[in-house]
Parts: sequence; structure tokens; C-alpha cells
Amino acid sequence: MDTIIENALIERLAAGFTRTPHQLNELRESDAELIYLPGSRVVLALTTDAVVEEIEAGLYEEPYLIGWMTVMVNASDLAAVGAEPLGILLNQTLTPGLDDEFLAALQAGIRDACRHCGLALLGGDVNFSGHLQMAATALGTVTGEPPLTRRGCRPGDRLFASGPLGLGSAYALLKLSPERQPGGPNIEYRPTARLDEGQMLRRFATSSMDTSDGVIPTLDELMRLNGVGFSLDRPIGQLLHPAAARVARAAGLQDWMMLAGPHGEFELLFTVPGKHRAAFLEAAKASSWRPIEIGAVAQEHGLKLLSDGQPSRLDTAAVRNLFLEVAGDVEAYVAGLLRIDATRRRRTCVGGPAQAGS
Amino acid sequence: MDTIIENALIERLAAGFTRTPHQLNELRESDAELIYLPGSRVVLALTTDAVVEEIEAGLYEEPYLIGWMTVMVNASDLAAVGAEPLGILLNQTLTPGLDDEFLAALQAGIRDACRHCGLALLGGDVNFSGHLQMAATALGTVTGEPPLTRRGCRPGDRLFASGPLGLGSAYALLKLSPERQPGGPNIEYRPTARLDEGQMLRRFATSSMDTSDGVIPTLDELMRLNGVGFSLDRPIGQLLHPAAARVARAAGLQDWMMLAGPHGEFELLFTVPGKHRAAFLEAAKASSWRPIEIGAVAQEHGLKLLSDGQPSRLDTAAVRNLFLEVAGDVEAYVAGLLRIDATRRRRTCVGGPAQAGS
Repeated sequence: MDTIIENALIERLAAGFTRTPHQLNELRESDAELIYLPGSRVVLALTTDAVVEEIEAGLYEEPYLIGWMTVMVNASDLAAVGAEPLGILLNQTLTPGLDDEFLAALQAGIRDACRHCGLALLGGDVNFSGHLQMAATALGTVTGEPPLTRRGCRPGDRLFASGPLGLGSAYALLKLSPERQPGGPNIEYRPTARLDEGQMLRRFATSSMDTSDGVIPTLDELMRLNGVGFSLDRPIGQLLHPAAARVARAAGLQDWMMLAGPHGEFELLFTVPGKHRAAFLEAAKASSWRPIEIGAVAQEHGLKLLSDGQPSRLDTAAVRNLFLEVAGDVEAYVAGLLRIDATRRRRTCVGGPAQAGS
Repeated sequence: MDTIIENALIERLAAGFTRTPHQLNELRESDAELIYLPGSRVVLALTTDAVVEEIEAGLYEEPYLIGWMTVMVNASDLAAVGAEPLGILLNQTLTPGLDDEFLAALQAGIRDACRHCGLALLGGDVNFSGHLQMAATALGTVTGEPPLTRRGCRPGDRLFASGPLGLGSAYALLKLSPERQPGGPNIEYRPTARLDEGQMLRRFATSSMDTSDGVIPTLDELMRLNGVGFSLDRPIGQLLHPAAARVARAAGLQDWMMLAGPHGEFELLFTVPGKHRAAFLEAAKASSWRPIEIGAVAQEHGLKLLSDGQPSRLDTAAVRNLFLEVAGDVEAYVAGLLRIDATRRRRTCVGGPAQAGS
């Protein structure tokens, strides 16, 4: 298996640190850290996430969106472990002399997202710098059924997405490379963390992870952690949000490229054992939630998908490393995706992905 | 009472947010957020703090110190509420192409500080930007005696410092204005959070706050929150760390200016009722800890101190706002302190500070 640059960095940064027996998850094993408190039956879910590159790259410009995303990137990690949201700590690095209107919209975005997620403001820290940066730490609790982690799926489990996919990549493409779609559609990008869905999933799912880095990087990480593969048995076009499908077509890109990340749509990807599939779908329906069944867990490592009518194998590690390798250059990134696609087309699967894992 | 710029900003940023009944403290009332968990007898202490301005201003240059302080600024908040340290989440914004040696020293500083404080690494987030920034969130627990807050002291309570004062200001003066001390001493600045002391203080203290922003800003905040004043009944020179006293003398500054902040020494300031004073000092002695008794809580708002042989009243709000008013310009800051000192000298107290509050 190829090394993932990001994982290698995380392991390097964490090397030699003491860990605590109160923590239920190992490094990278879940979207939020899961802490068992002595003298309590509550498991804490804690996560910290910053919005830095998105601001510097111009991906998030409107202050309301910056504020909204500062909360949502963290709330989405709570959703992935099935935690009940409790509160948030903010870490705002503001620029001196930030105008009142910008600051008001920034705080409104944070406040609205907190309300939407049921996260109370617990506290925070404010710093000043020449560069606006936002970070937060979200706190949730898990009682009753154990929390979800990224680990636990088995070959044969069904793979689901919590909603239509591809809006994160589509939004990034329009925003950072507008010349690809002159007069193209403006995408409304305002993801909401799947908190209620995550809590329900604790009864059914064997693994769960949010698509904050895009769908393919998420599948790559789940494959690595579980020693499995995935087979997407519906054409990618059917998994995409209609706006993402339009962007791909207009830009002349393959539909799977809307799943490449690294900017994600903040949906959940999760696995449900076949024997719980019917009960899960029933429960989802009762909550008016329409998850999308996208494939299955396979024994063999690797991702099989149906793009452009062809069943094929995609090099997910190459997709995942690409953005760091091109140092964030969007045109070089798209060129890299096209190269990876050429390789994929040579790797068409005999028998097709529907038979994967059998 | 004059408005504190920082407090006004905090209240503005927090305006309109939902708060949770699970939180024991109000905004600004304690160094760490205190969260009561339903179904548990544990109170959580949570705090987030970033190291941003210190890096940008060149106050922290050595990567080991940057890493060390990233942990200590947070651990010190846990100390102030008397929490038992549990773990930490890191939020590192690294510059692309950071050299290996720098990164290794940065992580060593973080790791050593975590070990020193008994903080396990729980998780974190890494981002890349043109500007190195560090933040963390620390988690602790409080069981048994309730946590300490900044609120609760009464006139007549004794005021203590957990150790000698002034190193934060002295270090900043040497580092940012070296021309004031050509060939002057190099100060070893590596504060350690007073975690054991904080836990012991839960049995004795009525209020507690760390001096992360310097002694005078800390006293100003405690006065405001408690509707009291303070009277420092020992000459300031006797409260200072010897190195801080030397720096003040060599720079031709008044000794009280080493308490002005905004860069602090990360000691605790706390109050103990007279009736518990003896038992507290006994317990401290048994732990080989030598706190410094620096004064008393007074009924009347304001800070009385003995500097340069003169009992006088210091305008703590002016001291506290000064650094923001001069936008971080060190020479303008020193000039401002000299102006404030001239006012102080005109405000000598009849009767002296020893009688304050009586």
C-alpha cells in the first residue's frame, strides 16, 4: 500500500507522546477523540479543527461562510462518532482593524451554525495577527450504545453515504478555477453536520467517517484502517449531487473527480451489516432521511467503481496525495487527476465491481 | 470603572450565543470552562489558548520554547481552576517546507511539557500556512471539592502568589528591546503550570487566576469580577524574581513595571480567608511549596501598592489597556508605563496600603 503523506506527517508529529488509557480510540481511528471518564458512564467526544488553508486559498471568502464552516467542520466530527453535541470553544485569530461588518457576519455564521447544531458556546481565545485564522474545539457526549469509529466494517457490509456527494469538489473547482466554467452555475455551499443521523447510526453502523477531505480520501482511510476494499456498485453519476454532476460535465471532467477532494461535502460514509440493512433503512425512513446505498465492503484492498460506464480500479492513494504533491496548485491538481484517470481506464475490471468481495 | 478593551471585545464576540446550563461558570469567570456532565459526578475543565502574537512579535523564537508554551498556556488554566490534567488536543499551523530540525525541536517542546504536566496527547489537527501558529485545547477533571474560579474572594481575605513574579515582563523587555540592556542577563524563561498547587488550593482558596497576562491585569480582572480592591502590603521589590528585579534596575524602570504584562509569568494569584491562612501555609509547607503572601483583599475598588518606598494607587485599567492602545509597540508601551507611573506618584495614599480595606 502506498504511503499517505498526511498520515506519515501525523504519525511523525505524534511520535513519542504519552497516550492515556482513558482514550478509547487510537490515533486516526475515529473522527473525534473518545474519552472514557473515570467515575462516569459518559464517553466524551472531543475534536479540534481549523479553517486555515481554505481562507488563505480564497476558497472561503464570505465571513458568514468562514464562521459557519469553523463550527461545521468540528460538528461533523461529532456526527461521525454518533455523539450528542454539547458545546464549542472558539479560537479566533483576527486581523487588527477588521471592519465591523466583516466581524458581525463572521460571528453570525458561527452563531447560526452553533444553533443549528445544538452547540453552546463554552469559551474561547482571541488573538491578533496579520492573517485571519479560525479554529474550534467541539465537545459531545455518548451514552448508551458505544460511539462509532472508523474501524469495524467487514467484507459484505453495505456501504452508504448520508446524502448526495460531490458538492465540496464542485464548489472548490468553481471558486478556484472559474475559467473552467465561464458563466457557470454558482453553487450554494453550506454543509450541515449529520448529527441526528450519526446518533441513529450508533444502533446500526460498523464504521463511520465524515467526508471532510472528500469521498475518495475517506474511502482510502477506511480501507487502510479496516484492511478491506470497497466496491461502488452504482454508477458514480447517480451518487452525485445534481449541481456537482453539472459542474463535472461543464468542465469536461469525469464524474468520479467530484469525489476526489481534498475539499469535502461533510457527509458521512458508513457501513451497515447486511442483516441490519432493512432495519436501518426502516429507521432512516421513519426520520425522513434518505441515505444513499453506494456499494459494499470487499475483501480485497482497493476501490472499484463504475465511472463513464466502465468498471475500473482507482488508485486512491494517488488521489489522496495529489493535492499536497502539487502544493495546492489547482491546475496541476486537475492535470494530475486526468493522469490518474488514464491509469484507471487501463485497469478495467473483469467481472465488474458488483462481484467484488464475493 | 474604565472599560477594558479586551473584555469589551470578548463580550462583543460572544453576544447572542446560546450557553448551556451544564456550564458552571459564566463568561470570564474562570480560567478554564467548567462543565458538569449529566450522569456523572465529574466536572470537566476545558480551555483553549493559542500562541500567535508571541511568535509574530519574535518573543518566542526557539521552536522548543514555542512548543513548550503551547502546552503550558493551557495547562496553567487547568491549574487555576484546580483541575487534574487529563489530555490535550493540538492545533498546529505549520509552514510548508519547515525544516526537520525546527519541527523536531517544536515537537520535543510540546512533548516534554505534556509529560511534565501529565497531559496525554488526545489528538489534533495540522494545517499549513505561510505563518506558524500554535494552539491547543487542554482537558482536565475535577472531583471532590468544587473547582476554583476567579470569583469568591471577600474583603479581608489574604492575597498570595504561587511564586516569585515578574519574569514574563522581564523576559519580554530583554527580548523585544535588547538595547535597554546591552550585555544584560539572558533570562531563562520556561514557566511550568502550577498544577499540583492548584489542586491543593481547592481546599483553601476563595478565588484564583493565572498571571498569563501579567500580574496587574490579573489583579484588575479579579477586582472587577469580585467588586473589591487589593492592597499589596509588601514592597514590590520583595515580590519579584531576582532576575526580574535586576532587569528593572538595569533598564531604569520602576519595579512595579515588571508586573505590568501583557506577557506573564504563569504563576497563580489566589485568595485565602484569614481563618484558613495557617492551615493553608501548613499544607503548602508539607508539599515543599513556598507561596508568597503579597497582600489583602480590600473593600474599595483599586490597587494600592508600595513601589519605590511610596504607598500609592495604580491605574490598573490604564496598564491593562496600554499594550493594545500602542498596537504592540514596545517603546511606546514603556513610555506609556512611565506616564502611568507619574500619575501614580501623585496618588500617594494617606495611611498607606497596609490599612486598606479596614
